[in-house]
Amino acid sequence: MGLVAVSWTKNLRKRLPPTRFLHDLKDSQSDQILISPPLASLDLPDIWSPSSCRSVPAIHKSFNEQTAVVLDGKLISMEIRSKIAAKVRQMKKCLGKVPGLAVISVGERRDSQTYVRNKILACEEVGFKSLVTELPTYCAETDVQNAIRKFNKDPSIHGILVQLPLPQHLDEEKVLDNVCLEKDVDGFHPLNMGNLSMRGREPHFTPCTPKGCIELLMRSGVKIMGKKAVVIGRSNIVGLPTSLLLQRHHATVTVIHAFTENPEQITSDADIVVSAAGVPNLVRGNWIKPGATVIDVGTTPVEDPGSQDGYRLAGDVCFEEAITVASVITPVPGGVGPMTVAMLLCNTLDSAKRMLSFG
Amino acid sequence: MGLVAVSWTKNLRKRLPPTRFLHDLKDSQSDQILISPPLASLDLPDIWSPSSCRSVPAIHKSFNEQTAVVLDGKLISMEIRSKIAAKVRQMKKCLGKVPGLAVISVGERRDSQTYVRNKILACEEVGFKSLVTELPTYCAETDVQNAIRKFNKDPSIHGILVQLPLPQHLDEEKVLDNVCLEKDVDGFHPLNMGNLSMRGREPHFTPCTPKGCIELLMRSGVKIMGKKAVVIGRSNIVGLPTSLLLQRHHATVTVIHAFTENPEQITSDADIVVSAAGVPNLVRGNWIKPGATVIDVGTTPVEDPGSQDGYRLAGDVCFEEAITVASVITPVPGGVGPMTVAMLLCNTLDSAKRMLSFG
Repeated sequence: MGLVAVSWTKNLRKRLPPTRFLHDLKDSQSDQILISPPLASLDLPDIWSPSSCRSVPAIHKSFNEQTAVVLDGKLISMEIRSKIAAKVRQMKKCLGKVPGLAVISVGERRDSQTYVRNKILACEEVGFKSLVTELPTYCAETDVQNAIRKFNKDPSIHGILVQLPLPQHLDEEKVLDNVCLEKDVDGFHPLNMGNLSMRGREPHFTPCTPKGCIELLMRSGVKIMGKKAVVIGRSNIVGLPTSLLLQRHHATVTVIHAFTENPEQITSDADIVVSAAGVPNLVRGNWIKPGATVIDVGTTPVEDPGSQDGYRLAGDVCFEEAITVASVITPVPGGVGPMTVAMLLCNTLDSAKRMLSFG
Repeated sequence: MGLVAVSWTKNLRKRLPPTRFLHDLKDSQSDQILISPPLASLDLPDIWSPSSCRSVPAIHKSFNEQTAVVLDGKLISMEIRSKIAAKVRQMKKCLGKVPGLAVISVGERRDSQTYVRNKILACEEVGFKSLVTELPTYCAETDVQNAIRKFNKDPSIHGILVQLPLPQHLDEEKVLDNVCLEKDVDGFHPLNMGNLSMRGREPHFTPCTPKGCIELLMRSGVKIMGKKAVVIGRSNIVGLPTSLLLQRHHATVTVIHAFTENPEQITSDADIVVSAAGVPNLVRGNWIKPGATVIDVGTTPVEDPGSQDGYRLAGDVCFEEAITVASVITPVPGGVGPMTVAMLLCNTLDSAKRMLSFG
C-alpha cells in the first residue's frame, strides 16, 4: 500500500462518498501527477431546464463527536513531488535538460525568506535547477526589473517567481507585469487571471494555492459540480482565483469578504468552505454545515511562547470546533501550505514540458 | 422637474429607501454623466472584525399587491445620451474633433443587424463619428482582422466593436484579441477582464451591460455594499463581468448557472438579482425575496403572432409575478437594453477624452 495521506478518526470511511485516495491511485494511474484536470472547462453548455431547477433537499446530518477526515497535505504533496522527480529524471535522460525555476526575493522579511528557502529546497529535491536573486529592501525598481528581464531571456529558466509582498516603495503591479507570460508560474498576471475567468479561454498557469485546494478536494472524493462553495476572502492570489477555479468546476460560488453581512449564515449553508481571510479563528464551528468540507488557507503567525521560534502559524478556522462538524478538513500547518509548493513545482514542470516539447 | 424615469405604482415612495432619481440629479450634478463611479475600487482594506460579522436580520416585508418601481431604462438612457451629446459639442468646439466608433459586423443575422443599426443611430444622435464595416457571412478571418487593423490605426476612431456572435467558422477569441486594448470599448479582452477582477488594478473599459446594470441600481437608490447579490448566468459578456463589478461594489455575490442545485432557493435569499440566463420566464415570483431589486438582462426573441414582426423580446423574469414581490424591477424591453447602448457611448466618449487629453 502507498502513502496513507489521511488521518482517520473512528470508523468514518463508510460515512463518506466513494473516495479516491492515494493508495488507490498509485496502482491505477502511476504516470499521472495530479488528479485534477489540467484545467476545468467552462464550456459545458449552460442549458437551463426544469430538471436543473429541481429542489434537492439539503442533507443536514447530526455530528456529535470528532468525525472529520483530516487531510494530510504534507503527505499528499510528498507523493506529488515524488512523481514530479520521476518525470524530471525522465526528462534529463531524454533531453539532458531539467526544469528551471528562478526566484526573486526583495528585502529581509523572515516569513518570505522561509518561503523562498522552502521553495528552493523543494526544487533541489525534485531535481530542478533553481536560481535565486536576492535584492536589498531599498533596491531600485530597475534592479528588480533587470533581474526579471535576465530570467525572461534565460532558456534554462521555465518559471519565474517574485516573492510577495514586495517592499512598499516598489510598484508590485508594474513589477509583475514584466514577468514573461510563458514563465509566470504563479499565474498572477492579469491576462492569466482574465483567461482563468472566461469561458472558452485557458490561462498558461493556474495559481498554485487554488490549484492545490482543488487537488485536495478531488483527492478527498468531494464532489464539486453543483455544490455550494463559499470562498472567504478575495485576495488576488488566493480568494479570487479560487472562486474562479471552483466556478470552472461548476460549483455555485459565493465570495465572502469583510463587508459581507451575516457571513456565518452564508458559510453555514455551504458544502465546501475555502477560507483565505488571514484571520485566526474567524470560522467557528457554528459557521460550518454538518458534513461540509473545510479547506483552511489561512497561515497567520501568532505569538506562541511554547514553540521553538516563539510563534506558530494559525489558520482561519477554529480547528477544534470545526473537526466535530465537518466531514473533511485541512489542518494548519500541514494542509494547503505544502500543496502550494507542490503546485509551483507542477506549474514549472508543465512550463518546461511545453517549452521543450516534452510529452 | 426633469424626466421622470420611473413608473410609480400606488403610493410607494414612502416605503422605499431615500432615492436619487433623475430630477434630483439634474439640478445637483449637471456635468456628471453617470452616477456610478468611473470604477469602484476593491482597495478598501478587508478588515475583519466582530462588528463585520454581526447578525443583521433579513427584512422580509410582505407585499400583497403590485408594488415594484419599474425602472424605465429608455428614459434614463435618453438623459445620459443628452449629457453625452453636450460633452461632444463641447469637445468639437474646443478641439474640432468628436469621438469615433467603428463597428464590424459579419453575416446577416437579423438581430445583429438591428443591434448594429441601433448603435449607429445612437452615435449619430450624440454627434459621434461612426463607421461600419459589413462583411459577408463566409468571409475569411483575415478580412475581419484587416478591418480591425485598419481601425486600430485610425486616429479618428476611439472605440472598436465587433458585433457578436460571429459566424461559427471564425475564431471569436483570436478576432477579439486583435482589437487594440485602448479601443476595446466592449471591454471583452481577457486582459481587461483580468484587470476588472483584480484588486489594485483597473480595466480600460467596463463592459457595457454590467456598467448599465450598476448605473440602474445606483439611480434607483439601491444599496449595493454588503448586500447579497445573485447573478444568474455566467457568460463572458454579461454574467461574469456583472459578478466582478458587483463585487467591486462590495456586494456578496453568488453566481448561479445551469448546474446550480436549488437556484430558486439561493435567488430567493438575494437583495439584488441580475438575471442574464437567456431563458424566458426562468425567474418566477417565488424566486424573489420580497422587496428585492430585480434587473432582467434577458432578451430572447419569442414568437408572438400578435406583434408587428411576429416576435417579441422576452426577459428571464416572469414580470407579472415578480412585480408583486420585488421593490424595484426592470422591464424587457426598455430596461437594461437601452442602458447598454448608452454605456457603449459613454465608454467611447471616455476613450476619446483619454486619447485626446480632453478633461
